[in-house]
Amino acid sequence: MKILISNAHVLHPDGSVREGNIAIEGNKIAAVGEIPASWQPERTIDAKDRLAVPGFVNAHTHASMTLLRSYADDMKLMDWLQQKIWPIEAKMRNEDIYWGAMLAAVEMIQGGTTTFADMYGPDMEKVAEVVAESGLRAILSRGLIGVVPDADEKIAENVALFKNWHQKAEGRITVMFGPHALYTCPPDYLHKVAEAAKSLGAEIHIHMSETRGEVEECLKQYGKRPFAHVAATGLFDNGTLAAHCVHLDDEDISIIKKYGIRVAHNPGSNMKLASGIAPVPRLLAEGVCVALGTDGASSNNNLDMLEEVNLAAMLHKVASYDPEAVPAGEALRMGTAYGAKAVGLSDVGLLKEGYKADIVLFDMTSPAWMPRHDPVSLLVYSANASSVDTVIVDGRILMEKRELLTLDEERILFETKRRVEHLLAH
Amino acid sequence: MKILISNAHVLHPDGSVREGNIAIEGNKIAAVGEIPASWQPERTIDAKDRLAVPGFVNAHTHASMTLLRSYADDMKLMDWLQQKIWPIEAKMRNEDIYWGAMLAAVEMIQGGTTTFADMYGPDMEKVAEVVAESGLRAILSRGLIGVVPDADEKIAENVALFKNWHQKAEGRITVMFGPHALYTCPPDYLHKVAEAAKSLGAEIHIHMSETRGEVEECLKQYGKRPFAHVAATGLFDNGTLAAHCVHLDDEDISIIKKYGIRVAHNPGSNMKLASGIAPVPRLLAEGVCVALGTDGASSNNNLDMLEEVNLAAMLHKVASYDPEAVPAGEALRMGTAYGAKAVGLSDVGLLKEGYKADIVLFDMTSPAWMPRHDPVSLLVYSANASSVDTVIVDGRILMEKRELLTLDEERILFETKRRVEHLLAH
Repeated sequence: MKILISNAHVLHPDGSVREGNIAIEGNKIAAVGEIPASWQPERTIDAKDRLAVPGFVNAHTHASMTLLRSYADDMKLMDWLQQKIWPIEAKMRNEDIYWGAMLAAVEMIQGGTTTFADMYGPDMEKVAEVVAESGLRAILSRGLIGVVPDADEKIAENVALFKNWHQKAEGRITVMFGPHALYTCPPDYLHKVAEAAKSLGAEIHIHMSETRGEVEECLKQYGKRPFAHVAATGLFDNGTLAAHCVHLDDEDISIIKKYGIRVAHNPGSNMKLASGIAPVPRLLAEGVCVALGTDGASSNNNLDMLEEVNLAAMLHKVASYDPEAVPAGEALRMGTAYGAKAVGLSDVGLLKEGYKADIVLFDMTSPAWMPRHDPVSLLVYSANASSVDTVIVDGRILMEKRELLTLDEERILFETKRRVEHLLAH
Repeated sequence: MKILISNAHVLHPDGSVREGNIAIEGNKIAAVGEIPASWQPERTIDAKDRLAVPGFVNAHTHASMTLLRSYADDMKLMDWLQQKIWPIEAKMRNEDIYWGAMLAAVEMIQGGTTTFADMYGPDMEKVAEVVAESGLRAILSRGLIGVVPDADEKIAENVALFKNWHQKAEGRITVMFGPHALYTCPPDYLHKVAEAAKSLGAEIHIHMSETRGEVEECLKQYGKRPFAHVAATGLFDNGTLAAHCVHLDDEDISIIKKYGIRVAHNPGSNMKLASGIAPVPRLLAEGVCVALGTDGASSNNNLDMLEEVNLAAMLHKVASYDPEAVPAGEALRMGTAYGAKAVGLSDVGLLKEGYKADIVLFDMTSPAWMPRHDPVSLLVYSANASSVDTVIVDGRILMEKRELLTLDEERILFETKRRVEHLLAH
């Protein structure tokens, strides 16, 4: 379909905001700015008082965990995992995975997220179905754990996920391999995952150096820091999206640069779980691609990417005593253009001719947007996700004036409630 | 008026949430929980799927600065003040003060704030008018600066503000004295302010130890740290609300405890301006009353108290590597009950018989509130201010189902836009 977004305040790739139009043809942006009068749209969206930005890319999440939101908080990490999260996760089956991801999809669309990178299981194909139905764009990986009896079966599931869903749903799905972390995947298992991914030309999504304890344990057990240890297994040869990367030294950063590893920074999760503060200003200064993720809703506790953009801009200022660290525009790029690059999408994340039409319109008529000295500052520091008005992914309108067009919110809320009651009762 | 809030999920003073009713008579809460059938309300608010919490107390802000939201960001503090903020502030007159505070009032009510502690000028009486008209509760102080020619005149204005407005607007206004900070108020001026406040029985609202530079400068100039220096002027003898308190040592904390100084912690502002991280877990452990404030909208950049509650719960976890630091319930108390105590209101901040009816109802029907394992966790970690549904202050409904009942939002947005155009043009 040919859609014209008219009279928007458009965030251009150079960071400036200027009034103009956006022409969409099929799943791509055909033009930005002045549109020739000869170009005739089938649909026009009046975007007066709307700020048009690229859709957010949530570069690290566990969508189905949204079912566990507010189930357990404010606990020591290992108590939280062992006493609360792991026991209930062990009971989750395909219906839970499906409805948990559906709840996540509603929240993501309403919050302006157009792409998400997910790692979870079992039954990741259920998440692929949610992507197909919702119209979102996604990078899916089966969470792989090597210290369990069915470790090899999990790899086979990731292979099947790749064969069944990679580049499917009108090309909106990318499948990666999801080795969980080095402390749940012994080196020979990481090597096996590396080989499986390599044979398919798939990339890797992994948690790296999230906590101090993880780095210390790796040093003790393997005599190497995490990045050197994992590099030796061959895993990074495939192309890697590494979540967290909180505790890094010079050697770690040189390995990140050597392998072109893209970092998914999760400020909200790192704050809530008290994991630490990632050296984001340094990574950015050294040219590393740093994206943003929400992590799962049980450690955040939402999938609100605008909050992560805000936290990325705020946390590193205070951590470095530098009010110029991670300015608003840079934080917004982390949540959009850098996110797309991090998940391997070269034509997503900018409002630019030829790019995929993944676009969010923010309603600037509420007091949080007044006065309107600087729209990017208002978006990053003042507004919240309730200003998201219209969401377009791959040229298709998923939400218009806050009405969801692909998903039945009422039914999803009803079914998730039922699934949770079932999980808690059994 | 007698108002019944029926079937709410009520946050009780002990931190538990239970379904029940709230009866309001006049400006007070008459009963919480079971209401005798004989009690006949004039109005009933159906609060099904609503979480009832005490209204937020914004313990430190500069309401009229909302006019400067997004005017200047991501700059070094002194560049930001000297090149941008101070020059435009110097041009602000009574109309700007009035409409800036009106814009702030709209935002505060929509965000569930029922009380705010303001320090600004000139023409603080205009802010008092906004309080009277809006129905909000407020603690007002004239910002006092001792290093200017009209320093004494400013004290006279604070005295006049007290005489004209203290305990006015149905008792919703408290007037304090507002010496800006020790670096803008020489010791003899602080002493003069202390005497003026003492003669009226007024308390003090002051910025303390916000930046490292301020502490170092005080040591260099006076040979004492800020708290010892200000204590020697007699200022703290009046009862004190001290904003920021970021850089504290043992001696500072012992002085805070000795004088019963209440702290207004501003996590958002401290992060954005890169001021530092206040030792909040320690202050709380030592029994200091720690409230929350947004600071002005030019350093935050909004007046959203739920964001501050969230940041208070998140920032101190990561700063202390302790996921149990400042749990959700404690952060919420900082934004409500501790806030009321901090600003000197003994019957505000709890949903309890005999307390002032300052109540906010949050709509829990959106995905951010699903599943509903723990409403306090959902409020603090997942929801945003767009869930604020109904706001009651002093027994009067200021917003019902997101409709403002005391203020004309459209006109306020129009007038603030005009004021800003005028400020920038002259």
